[in-house]
Amino acid sequence: MQPFRVAIAGLGTVGAETARILMTEAELLGARAGRPVELKAVSARDRSRDRGVDLSGVEWEDDAAALAARDDVDCVLELIGGSEGVAYDLVLGAIRSGKSVVTANKALIAHHGAEIAELCESHDVGLGYEAAVAGGIPIIKSVREGFSGNRIGRIYGILNGTCNYIMTVMRETGRPFEDVLADAQKLGYAEADPSFDVDGIDAAHKLAILSALAFGHHVDFKNVHVEGIRHVSPLDISFAEELGYRIKLLGIAEETGDGVQQRVHPCMVKAETPIGQVEGVFNAVVAEGSAVGTTLSYGRGAGAGPTASAVLADVIDLAACRRVPVFGLPSSKLSPGRTAPVTALSGCYYLRLMVIDRPGVLADVTAVFRDHGVSVEAMIQRARNPDEAVPLVLTTHETPETAIRTSLEELVKLDAVLEEPRLIRIEEF
Amino acid sequence: MQPFRVAIAGLGTVGAETARILMTEAELLGARAGRPVELKAVSARDRSRDRGVDLSGVEWEDDAAALAARDDVDCVLELIGGSEGVAYDLVLGAIRSGKSVVTANKALIAHHGAEIAELCESHDVGLGYEAAVAGGIPIIKSVREGFSGNRIGRIYGILNGTCNYIMTVMRETGRPFEDVLADAQKLGYAEADPSFDVDGIDAAHKLAILSALAFGHHVDFKNVHVEGIRHVSPLDISFAEELGYRIKLLGIAEETGDGVQQRVHPCMVKAETPIGQVEGVFNAVVAEGSAVGTTLSYGRGAGAGPTASAVLADVIDLAACRRVPVFGLPSSKLSPGRTAPVTALSGCYYLRLMVIDRPGVLADVTAVFRDHGVSVEAMIQRARNPDEAVPLVLTTHETPETAIRTSLEELVKLDAVLEEPRLIRIEEF
Repeated sequence: MQPFRVAIAGLGTVGAETARILMTEAELLGARAGRPVELKAVSARDRSRDRGVDLSGVEWEDDAAALAARDDVDCVLELIGGSEGVAYDLVLGAIRSGKSVVTANKALIAHHGAEIAELCESHDVGLGYEAAVAGGIPIIKSVREGFSGNRIGRIYGILNGTCNYIMTVMRETGRPFEDVLADAQKLGYAEADPSFDVDGIDAAHKLAILSALAFGHHVDFKNVHVEGIRHVSPLDISFAEELGYRIKLLGIAEETGDGVQQRVHPCMVKAETPIGQVEGVFNAVVAEGSAVGTTLSYGRGAGAGPTASAVLADVIDLAACRRVPVFGLPSSKLSPGRTAPVTALSGCYYLRLMVIDRPGVLADVTAVFRDHGVSVEAMIQRARNPDEAVPLVLTTHETPETAIRTSLEELVKLDAVLEEPRLIRIEEF
Repeated sequence: MQPFRVAIAGLGTVGAETARILMTEAELLGARAGRPVELKAVSARDRSRDRGVDLSGVEWEDDAAALAARDDVDCVLELIGGSEGVAYDLVLGAIRSGKSVVTANKALIAHHGAEIAELCESHDVGLGYEAAVAGGIPIIKSVREGFSGNRIGRIYGILNGTCNYIMTVMRETGRPFEDVLADAQKLGYAEADPSFDVDGIDAAHKLAILSALAFGHHVDFKNVHVEGIRHVSPLDISFAEELGYRIKLLGIAEETGDGVQQRVHPCMVKAETPIGQVEGVFNAVVAEGSAVGTTLSYGRGAGAGPTASAVLADVIDLAACRRVPVFGLPSSKLSPGRTAPVTALSGCYYLRLMVIDRPGVLADVTAVFRDHGVSVEAMIQRARNPDEAVPLVLTTHETPETAIRTSLEELVKLDAVLEEPRLIRIEEF
């Protein structure tokens, strides 16, 4: 049978590992694909760097875009990254020249997924992006194919290993965010510019993709509500533990009846739930289907090996001519983004105020809640420090997000309330 | 596009639920398959029973085998069960007449998988059996496609929800096996004849399938070492808890270098590991891949909805012409079963003896271990009951299975040792 000829654009750790496996496991991959899978060409900025893999028999292009034009390549692996520029041009160029594409680029799919899906259909090529969400966990395949007999009601998960690692270490050591982030950067778990990770954007890219797949709508990144973890303090982590919770940065997409609500923010989840048990750099995704019920998929969400694993699975599927519409349905059957705003949310909340420790403060605070119909479930004010700041922690029964936000606006006006209050949603799964 | 016409053989809870979803979600399933999916014919013993689904527009065959012969059917769903007889004849008949097949029948695949795989190849038809292992969890798809860029080193899991439910309730209530089994039978979690479940056979069927897929060998059920849970006592569960373990019936398939070792038996696993946290009727499978690292998939392993979910995913894949060789590789490339015997095992062990509480017993017991080179890690003899039977619990450091078995043979000869000793393997994941 004809070999399936692939080209890799981008030889960072993921690209180099993918190339290495393609070279060293060619026989196994070929047997699984039903035809030889050949690495034909590569492109990267620096030709001379030692990447631990012998690419001497492989064609080299200085310009990634040239890979799309080669007529000896069937499939382009875009492992450059970034939602615009070289990656965007390469992916669209490859599709337009009739090549299938595999990408690990969550930003690209989150921003341009709709256009790319349509282009794949009009050029009759396949696109794999398993590596874009939750690294080695085959969650795209699970949602797109494994749960195809279901209607998904909710899908949520820990989609960013960097954030989960930082919060795990913060909980274990009691150290503040900035310190742990600096260590994570030294260890290579966080980028020099950490904002994509810690501000929740990376998780939001992934959530936008999962939501589109799960609910059959056009990918709708701009309507994902995003909060990061910079404001999560050791104090909140320790109160969470006391209340039986762990703080996790979750991406949650949910069918509300008024549309799909997509949000990424720190959540308190019960420590003993499967999602609460996911620690360190691991990712996990929970999908709730009409037939299958609750499922969870767990694994490494990043790193050269797990990402290469996902890339190669896509390559083998494409080599074996197993194709699925980009978002599980033909573009014409995807619904427009039906967004339910996060202000429509109703749930339980954790609130930490820093208040002056003096008589009457609690009465003032609880009066605000009473006036806005917010029902308090528990209250902790353990430290004593007369006339100085102490933390006052409250958790609420189910209450509309609007009510808790209006309460907050009133609370900050109180003389006794110092600092910005900290609000964290509690998710009962 | 031409509709994909399916027939269902067997209208038990799974068959009826599959039929219901095919009828009520036809539009969604068709959109996902890229062509209409039509339920054309069914077969079941009792035509008159109310199954909660209107089958008036569907053809009825009294003889399941007749479904294989119909020329208006593209795919037969075998939901009858059993490794021989009607199910076997139907599946082989359908393949021989050029129809694709979807089955939930683990016994059939475990016993006849090799023959069926070859027949599928020679007749160029696809076979789906996602529902045969771990119910709604898409673990066949994950191993066969999602991890195709990996070599699997080990795959293990909780593959029988009935056993896991029974042991969870035993731990929570301290009640004995027989009592909890009787309740599980009343609740419909266990069959009237529970031996397939509680003796480990059902888990062994599933493990044999997973092992063949993961390691690319011919399915080799006869070489699965099988022990069930009948001997697990509340005493052992409580000692396990004290030692930080949970007892789980695991299926484990592992590449040992001398072949693949397949075994199903009760194991002690650390309570805080992901697999140790899986409780009740849930299943979970851990796959360890060369690139992806450790992954875990969790969900409901049985029941009408989860099983129908898996069946329908296979139907949609086949309708969309997405086909994978039955065991991930062409039959000609599967290796013969390369079995490593369980006696080659080396590991840590939990051992409970019932001994007479009198001086000198411990010296006699530990002398046996010394003589066989078994290194004791911990010992518990809490109860005091002079000259009566008390439990003596020991855990070992890593030791060959042969050494512990020879030690056991010596121990039962001691006067002070009453009853059959209980041996449970400790797995450190």
